[in-house]
Amino acid sequence: MTQKATFYHAGCPVCLSAEQGLAHALDPAAYDVEIVHLGEAPGRIAEAEAAGVESVPALVMGGQPFHINFGASLADVKGAA
Amino acid sequence: MTQKATFYHAGCPVCLSAEQGLAHALDPAAYDVEIVHLGEAPGRIAEAEAAGVESVPALVMGGQPFHINFGASLADVKGAA
Repeated sequence: MTQKATFYHAGCPVCLSAEQGLAHALDPAAYDVEIVHLGEAPGRIAEAEAAGVESVPALVMGGQPFHINFGASLADVKGAA
Repeated sequence: MTQKATFYHAGCPVCLSAEQGLAHALDPAAYDVEIVHLGEAPGRIAEAEAAGVESVPALVMGGQPFHINFGASLADVKGAA
């Protein structure tokens, strides 16, 4: 039984590094990782915001947001979308 | 063959949440995770700093530092140690 983990990013270099380094490093036996590019899926910005995401890249697991380094604020992503 | 991942923290609530949520979520088949409490092991602060760690909690994987949320700056940890 896997748990859902959602990795939100916006295509920035910091985002890609976190995706390669961290999002893909999660235990596949325990986590089902979905990668969401908020620039390409602006309709999901509200969902990220509701989960407590303030900047990207961020990983939401078990309802908790983990901000990884700093690529862009969610406000900037919204402005660009 | 596992790769080394080092999770640096300082015992703060944000650190513990990241340890439980993220450090323990890494694929055990791919990563050998070491948990380092810099408050209890101040001798390893220099090593964290050399890896690019600026704040805790942080995870260093493949030579790259990933800062997860923000608990305390490394300067504060050094001041307290």
